[in-house]
Amino acid sequence: MTAPYSIAGDWGTTRMRLFRCVGGRVVDRVDGPGIGALASATPAQALRDAIAPWRADGAPLHIVLCGMAGARSGVAEAPYAHCPADAQAWTARAQRLVLDGIPVAIAAGLACERADGAPDVMRGEETQLFGALHLDAALASGRRLCALPGTHGKWAWLEDGRIVQFQTFPSGELFALLRDQSTLTRVGDDPAGEDAGFDDGLAAARTRSGLLGQLFRARAAQLRAGKTRGWALGYLSGLVIGSEVGEILDASPAPPALTLVGDPALSARYARALAGAGATATTLDGDACALAGLHLLEETLSWS
Amino acid sequence: MTAPYSIAGDWGTTRMRLFRCVGGRVVDRVDGPGIGALASATPAQALRDAIAPWRADGAPLHIVLCGMAGARSGVAEAPYAHCPADAQAWTARAQRLVLDGIPVAIAAGLACERADGAPDVMRGEETQLFGALHLDAALASGRRLCALPGTHGKWAWLEDGRIVQFQTFPSGELFALLRDQSTLTRVGDDPAGEDAGFDDGLAAARTRSGLLGQLFRARAAQLRAGKTRGWALGYLSGLVIGSEVGEILDASPAPPALTLVGDPALSARYARALAGAGATATTLDGDACALAGLHLLEETLSWS
Repeated sequence: MTAPYSIAGDWGTTRMRLFRCVGGRVVDRVDGPGIGALASATPAQALRDAIAPWRADGAPLHIVLCGMAGARSGVAEAPYAHCPADAQAWTARAQRLVLDGIPVAIAAGLACERADGAPDVMRGEETQLFGALHLDAALASGRRLCALPGTHGKWAWLEDGRIVQFQTFPSGELFALLRDQSTLTRVGDDPAGEDAGFDDGLAAARTRSGLLGQLFRARAAQLRAGKTRGWALGYLSGLVIGSEVGEILDASPAPPALTLVGDPALSARYARALAGAGATATTLDGDACALAGLHLLEETLSWS
Repeated sequence: MTAPYSIAGDWGTTRMRLFRCVGGRVVDRVDGPGIGALASATPAQALRDAIAPWRADGAPLHIVLCGMAGARSGVAEAPYAHCPADAQAWTARAQRLVLDGIPVAIAAGLACERADGAPDVMRGEETQLFGALHLDAALASGRRLCALPGTHGKWAWLEDGRIVQFQTFPSGELFALLRDQSTLTRVGDDPAGEDAGFDDGLAAARTRSGLLGQLFRARAAQLRAGKTRGWALGYLSGLVIGSEVGEILDASPAPPALTLVGDPALSARYARALAGAGATATTLDGDACALAGLHLLEETLSWS
């Protein structure tokens, strides 16, 4: 007989990651399309399809999801918790539903209003943040600044375990547009030189003369200075990441202790940008934090 | 009998504009696809197709082209003149060829090296600039700063009629990517509110807190503050244009006399951004300047 299992899932715009868990331990995982990449299937149907192989062993006890699964275009719209928010305020606002007889909870997102009155939102990163607070006790005391790099990267200010404020930097989306759709990289096709380009991009960002006036160098240096397409891609990545870090450090001249939460390779790029600007950060794995947050939600909710 | 005519053309990445001229006066025009938008036809064939109706009246005396027609991917690669460059240095480097028996000249581009060693290039805007210098005698004396907004917009510093330095801002390309390809605008579809959005974008840019951290407001304000897609498009346009103007004014705290050269509607947006930052500019029509530059080239070259 198969051991009773639950499913924890981080389902964002660009990818779905589902974990099969037994007693809080991951025993299998499946990756699938993001909410923004579903062709014709509804999100509910895409979820059914993704878990069908596991259901052949019997239904899961329940499913806990975070991310764009809770957006208007997701499985079911989950509300936002408002900043400042602690884990209790967040778990209390999870959206409950039943899918094919299986109890489902979808994590609430977070909303905040910035000092200038501009609104901001996150869906998924709050689960990583509350997971990080659960994994790292030091993070839950005093003032902390967490970066969660990505398509719509977030910087979140924490105070004694509450998320008090955050700001979105769509740097991942911007870089992907520049890489895949712009004329800035399309001159040659030699992939070499990306690492040197990244450092040149960071250096360009550190001049703080502005992002817009530095973008075109990706193209001009291929036409006039013998640079490769690989260099140009690295340059644009370094320029965008370095500019993001520069904007944050300009706004927080004496930032509190810094933590990077995310994909290790991407976090390493941000760590290089921070180091170049004289700041250091500890890093936490984004998937591990998402799982910890989903388990926290799972344990807090009543499933009876 | 048809009057002898010549053809002057500004052929960029996104559009082709050809003018049929008799004695320096435009008698007809035809618009066609940009060099970057040619499906399968070679640039030479696209040019043949575009002028075929005029050739039915007889061959033109000659053809003078500027822009991406002189790029590696154009009709024939024209060299770059190096900054500082005056009109004489520029006209001397035009690329000559013969197409189906018709003498053709393609304007040289301009190349420069910025103070930080980064290279920059233009193809087409130099023709507008030398045309502007020809049309407006005041522009040819002293230090001047000219903006040529567009897909790959340029800011050019002039001294006594020479182009001494310039910088490319690919703001038009960036805005088009954000408008057409990003998730930032795709929430609703109500086109209202663009003008108010533009002003809000300019105001956000004037805070100088950075472009990257302000982009996501286009999406968040639709989700959380009842803003329309039209507002979001206007906001992104104002934010990008305002940031470009801010970068230039930061680098030139006491800028010399400012001139805007370009499409009147786009120039008006830049004029609003400049006014909001306390600067004023005179404006010149971009097509008129391009024609004046092409005629200058036509008159300077020997066609015997």
